[in-house]
Amino acid sequence: MEVMQVLHMNKGDDENSYAKNSKVQSKIISLGKRINGEAIMQMLCTNIPDIMGIADLGCSSGPNSLSLISEIIDMIYAKCRDLGRPTPELKVFLNDLPCSDFNSIFGSLPAFYDELRKEKGSEFGPCFVSATPGSFYGRLFPSRSLHCVHSSSSLHWLSQVPPGLEISSARMTTTMNKGKIYISKSSSHGVLEAYSLQFQTDFSSFLKSRSKEIAAGGCMLLSLMGRRSTDPTTDDSCYHWELLAQALMSMVSEGLVEEEKVDSFNAPYYGPCVEEIKTEIEKEGSFIVSRLETFEIEWDGGVDDADTTFGAQSRGQRVAKTIRAVVESMLEFHFGKDIMDELFKRYGETVEDYLSKTGTKYTNLVISMVRKG
Amino acid sequence: MEVMQVLHMNKGDDENSYAKNSKVQSKIISLGKRINGEAIMQMLCTNIPDIMGIADLGCSSGPNSLSLISEIIDMIYAKCRDLGRPTPELKVFLNDLPCSDFNSIFGSLPAFYDELRKEKGSEFGPCFVSATPGSFYGRLFPSRSLHCVHSSSSLHWLSQVPPGLEISSARMTTTMNKGKIYISKSSSHGVLEAYSLQFQTDFSSFLKSRSKEIAAGGCMLLSLMGRRSTDPTTDDSCYHWELLAQALMSMVSEGLVEEEKVDSFNAPYYGPCVEEIKTEIEKEGSFIVSRLETFEIEWDGGVDDADTTFGAQSRGQRVAKTIRAVVESMLEFHFGKDIMDELFKRYGETVEDYLSKTGTKYTNLVISMVRKG
Repeated sequence: MEVMQVLHMNKGDDENSYAKNSKVQSKIISLGKRINGEAIMQMLCTNIPDIMGIADLGCSSGPNSLSLISEIIDMIYAKCRDLGRPTPELKVFLNDLPCSDFNSIFGSLPAFYDELRKEKGSEFGPCFVSATPGSFYGRLFPSRSLHCVHSSSSLHWLSQVPPGLEISSARMTTTMNKGKIYISKSSSHGVLEAYSLQFQTDFSSFLKSRSKEIAAGGCMLLSLMGRRSTDPTTDDSCYHWELLAQALMSMVSEGLVEEEKVDSFNAPYYGPCVEEIKTEIEKEGSFIVSRLETFEIEWDGGVDDADTTFGAQSRGQRVAKTIRAVVESMLEFHFGKDIMDELFKRYGETVEDYLSKTGTKYTNLVISMVRKG
Repeated sequence: MEVMQVLHMNKGDDENSYAKNSKVQSKIISLGKRINGEAIMQMLCTNIPDIMGIADLGCSSGPNSLSLISEIIDMIYAKCRDLGRPTPELKVFLNDLPCSDFNSIFGSLPAFYDELRKEKGSEFGPCFVSATPGSFYGRLFPSRSLHCVHSSSSLHWLSQVPPGLEISSARMTTTMNKGKIYISKSSSHGVLEAYSLQFQTDFSSFLKSRSKEIAAGGCMLLSLMGRRSTDPTTDDSCYHWELLAQALMSMVSEGLVEEEKVDSFNAPYYGPCVEEIKTEIEKEGSFIVSRLETFEIEWDGGVDDADTTFGAQSRGQRVAKTIRAVVESMLEFHFGKDIMDELFKRYGETVEDYLSKTGTKYTNLVISMVRKG
């Protein structure tokens, strides 16, 4: 599976779309607000360039795509007003993989510009929004052209399934993580090693690319799924995958899915711990970490006012929809379209049952850093 | 009709798509090749910046979207190799209205990048492609950020239907161009005046925006439909609209289309003459014209090896498809989807008949200019 050609949040705006099931990610964005605000203010105090480059990496589509950009723009506007100086010209770049639904983001741009003009007057900016499709594990932008880079709920996606999970010989291919689709308590040391190594390679490529693109003094604000413990098999970082594997295996036991299909699927995902993040940033050497904090977040985002557009739903069902909107493109590519409804029905039930017994939450890491001069 | 929200080339890649019916536009791009090459070479002789901004305005989707960019990149590559210097970093911006099919262009980007690497090696560039949706009659890019701006087969589209074509009073709205959908030999002076005025306003806004965005010494390469004569009613500039109006009126006579619908539709299009272009450029004052040439082009692009994927077709049918791929979004918005097949069937027959008797061709204007220092 070529992640770059397959991974995208569910398109459109129907019941299973990411646009209608991205409240967890929206909550995660709001958790990072304080840290982001602090970093941006600090940057603006040192230097406001005439043209300011802002990028959101892994912007996806739906209501979250432009909301974060709006917030950053609000901060710049407020700070410049305080300082009694005109706002810089803003060039905003939205990035995601080429198979994402950019048409849908572009459809909401005219309203975004109207709102900007209405709220801030025609003297503001101007602000120019572009989209730059591609993998953020490589270069995306010209050298020193950015001043503020943001990425939320994206960097836990690896560039590829760790290659060490399959051992190919002339005669056969042996899969190493049978019956599982991500790191599990029963996974071998080789599996943990393969995942950790792929994360190191990817995150290091990410930092190297950004270090070329961000101007001295510019800030980078990252937020991704991770874990508190150095042990990668703790529930907070992998039990949502464990339950999805269980749902798949229950379908295997009824002959609805081939066992080899499950054995050969592994998620291109990794939830790192704080130490892994720190090590890579130090190794790369171009950034100084200002903040690195962890937050807990409920599997359904802790949203009380659940949207009932599509009928009342159990917590398990809501979680299943959130996960489906994110991982369906990959599962469908590997297992086929036909089993998706049944799989996520079972997954919802499994999650409902699990959450009734435990208080497991996701751990989200938020990091702000500054590009050295 | 809000042009910005309606006008787009036909999406997808079926029989009526722009992707499958854009050979005329491809021919037009190739006609401008010599003039474009000369202008780019001239610019590269004066100055090669470290980061070079290139924009294609009205890029549409389909095979033409990236072919022009490829050509410009080839020229830069060749020139830098001649000079024995590394190529600049290239930031490429594709622009069109927000309702265009950008997803389809983005789908072909990975192959575009692969080709670039294969042909020119990993030392080339790097080259970063972004899309910037919006109307080119306003600002799209930061100040002095571009070095080469190109636009082909787009600037003949106006930002709106000339407002002077409808006279509204408290009691009624009077339409001025009854039975026609563009300038016609029988159009009143008021109609010609309204169209010409809208072109002046739009082209002047275009020049004003670009003069801010293009760095001193940068070049602008424009190609658009127009006419040789100062008389706007000559066949080369408006008879393809005349025949479309005839096809519509034949449907009116059979009760298939309401007459008022035709009376109230006018194309947001204008084919200017050389003098009108020159006047606006001189009035704006930031650009020096290097070349301004006119070319004749057959209504079917003079393509001998007609694509027979969808069966052998008469010349009239081929022309009808070319026009349909471009104007259907607007006609459908105004007249409804249902009449499209019948309308373009009749249009194809009318065009076939007309072309068998005359040698009318389109006139295409190609202009290259340099931003003053």
